Amino acid sequence: MLAFSDGLFAIAMTLLVVGIQVPELRDPSEGELWDALADLQPAYVSFFISFVVIGRYWIAHHQFIRLLDKLDYGLIWWNTIYLAFVAFLPFPTALLGTYFENPVSIAAYAIAVALVSGLEVVLLRHAHRHHLIERQLPEDVYRWAVLLSSTPVLFFLGSIPIAFFDTSLAVLFWFGGIPLQLLVLNRWKPPHADEYIG
Amino acid sequence: MLAFSDGLFAIAMTLLVVGIQVPELRDPSEGELWDALADLQPAYVSFFISFVVIGRYWIAHHQFIRLLDKLDYGLIWWNTIYLAFVAFLPFPTALLGTYFENPVSIAAYAIAVALVSGLEVVLLRHAHRHHLIERQLPEDVYRWAVLLSSTPVLFFLGSIPIAFFDTSLAVLFWFGGIPLQLLVLNRWKPPHADEYIG
Amino acid sequence: MLAFSDGLFAIAMTLLVVGIQVPELRDPSEGELWDALADLQPAYVSFFISFVVIGRYWIAHHQFIRLLDKLDYGLIWWNTIYLAFVAFLPFPTALLGTYFENPVSIAAYAIAVALVSGLEVVLLRHAHRHHLIERQLPEDVYRWAVLLSSTPVLFFLGSIPIAFFDTSLAVLFWFGGIPLQLLVLNRWKPPHADEYIG
Amino acid sequence: MLAFSDGLFAIAMTLLVVGIQVPELRDPSEGELWDALADLQPAYVSFFISFVVIGRYWIAHHQFIRLLDKLDYGLIWWNTIYLAFVAFLPFPTALLGTYFENPVSIAAYAIAVALVSGLEVVLLRHAHRHHLIERQLPEDVYRWAVLLSSTPVLFFLGSIPIAFFDTSLAVLFWFGGIPLQLLVLNRWKPPHADEYIG
Repeated sequence: MLAFSDGLFAIAMTLLVVGIQVPELRDPSEGELWDALADLQPAYVSFFISFVVIGRYWIAHHQFIRLLDKLDYGLIWWNTIYLAFVAFLPFPTALLGTYFENPVSIAAYAIAVALVSGLEVVLLRHAHRHHLIERQLPEDVYRWAVLLSSTPVLFFLGSIPIAFFDTSLAVLFWFGGIPLQLLVLNRWKPPHADEYIG
Repeated sequence: MLAFSDGLFAIAMTLLVVGIQVPELRDPSEGELWDALADLQPAYVSFFISFVVIGRYWIAHHQFIRLLDKLDYGLIWWNTIYLAFVAFLPFPTALLGTYFENPVSIAAYAIAVALVSGLEVVLLRHAHRHHLIERQLPEDVYRWAVLLSSTPVLFFLGSIPIAFFDTSLAVLFWFGGIPLQLLVLNRWKPPHADEYIG
Repeated sequence: MLAFSDGLFAIAMTLLVVGIQVPELRDPSEGELWDALADLQPAYVSFFISFVVIGRYWIAHHQFIRLLDKLDYGLIWWNTIYLAFVAFLPFPTALLGTYFENPVSIAAYAIAVALVSGLEVVLLRHAHRHHLIERQLPEDVYRWAVLLSSTPVLFFLGSIPIAFFDTSLAVLFWFGGIPLQLLVLNRWKPPHADEYIG
Repeated sequence: MLAFSDGLFAIAMTLLVVGIQVPELRDPSEGELWDALADLQPAYVSFFISFVVIGRYWIAHHQFIRLLDKLDYGLIWWNTIYLAFVAFLPFPTALLGTYFENPVSIAAYAIAVALVSGLEVVLLRHAHRHHLIERQLPEDVYRWAVLLSSTPVLFFLGSIPIAFFDTSLAVLFWFGGIPLQLLVLNRWKPPHADEYIG
């Protein structure tokens, strides 16, 4: 299952580029082609944002799978749902790249990413409750890990009202989430958490 | 062959997203983009149905390959045909996502999936008859496994006439197949089946 | 290199489906959609031909790589060229699926496949001449293996003039190549070849 | 991480073919289809250039990863950025294939590839400075390896002004870089470098 998940992440990340369309022009001058490429800037930005976002989920998912001692059908099922939402991300990425200025595409992207983070919490919760994790996590370490996976849900959903004022501000708000998460990571990290989560 | 098959499944599942096209609009208002995204609902539904369907086939195929003790040319050949039909599924999925209301696309999707299930039966039968399975399956366990793989064929083909009355009912009928299969799985499961298939 | 080549084959085979476009119709009747799907028949045929053709190359390539004891830069270079032509095959496949009746697309497809077979011969020759094969092949086994890889070159190139009379006949001629190859395989197979090539 | 990077390279190389579009013609004559395929020549050339370029980066990256003894978060981060630029390459490749005569597409391609080489230097530098390499490289071997990775940056950026005189000359200039690199490789290679870099 680890190899399968890793493969799916790699494919989803590489497929992001399919969302960037070569501009269709009839024998363009240098200036026209330059302008057409400059107009695609939102598509490049969306590609790199999504590549890093999915890359971050890949690292987290990889660490999670390696924590597991055994699998049950519930986990295989939830993992399939989780991977479906990861594999879906190239669509909202292409949407964002095409309509970057439109708050609806920001909202669609934010909801899709928040769902992936939400399912990360579900997977962790299922594994913890059904004792699938190799060394049973102490309650404080488990709660801290849930907090860490939940933060992006709040950040992405919280960006939606912002997008209706200013779409660029909403995207900057996503990047505000990363330092905050690091803050959470360091401030509330329970002692000995490193023994359980590598 | 296991790694190759796993890779092919992962790629086929991720390629499903390529079938969802970003709507082409000229500088849409928020309402227009929202409506265009809402109109794509059949495409999202088809994506998730197919992701779960192919995911289910992946798990079954993975278990089957691990049962094998050796390979012959016949099995490699049938497995190639089986994988061809799996790799083909993104096309009927995109078709279903585009013409969800049209019974012809429901029929095309149902036939494509029924063929995959049918080939699953052929693979199992070939492996059983040519003694490729590590521990020879007792006749009752083998017959039960064939029954389990044949059920989706009946369900998907049976949904085609229903689609010509109501397409949504046909899709609901597919999901009726899953509980029925679980019923079959539990009711008629021969004792000691777990020793062979697991 | 084995894992990398296997992955590339799996991706090339799965990407073939991207060449089959969902027909663009405005709210088609059942009959219209059925006709549009029936018109795509050459695309389905091309998909399955190419899937089986690339699958056959994958098996041959996999066996070849496993024969090797060591690698040199020349082999890595030729293998990259070989894989480039394999990765290119989805294009002539999509071309064939779109213009099945046109002898030019038959010719383009036949040339692309003949090049892959030709490069298979180059790889084998390079490995044999530079002593990269684990157990040095006896001359008769080597010549027989070269013959086996060269047959498809002749068959595909020979189909090109036929295509200008009748395109379907040319495609049937490709399938004539498979029994002939099996004949070659059995008739001229040197004794003890199985000890070297598995 | 090695398997993940290898998979991503294989997918990026295979996706290059998606950039070559089947010409859209209504029931073309043999001559018309032949002309349309001949017009796609820049697309074939771009495909093969990029396949070889990405193939070369894959070999270099594979060798680099195998040098490493351990990972830190900085390296995982830089590797993600590096892979993002590799996964991006199908876009400038498709651009080059469509507007081969336009110096702007040559420039876009050259910048994209130069960035990948530049990030290769960053990865090497990071691994060397943070002592992640199994056997610490001597200063002269390290400087030589940096020189080797930097050469393509100079060559690709240097081709941009040439492209504004003659686009084909710029592409030929890229291929001049390979012999020069081999010259560098052999002339300035420090003794005992082979003990460290395989």
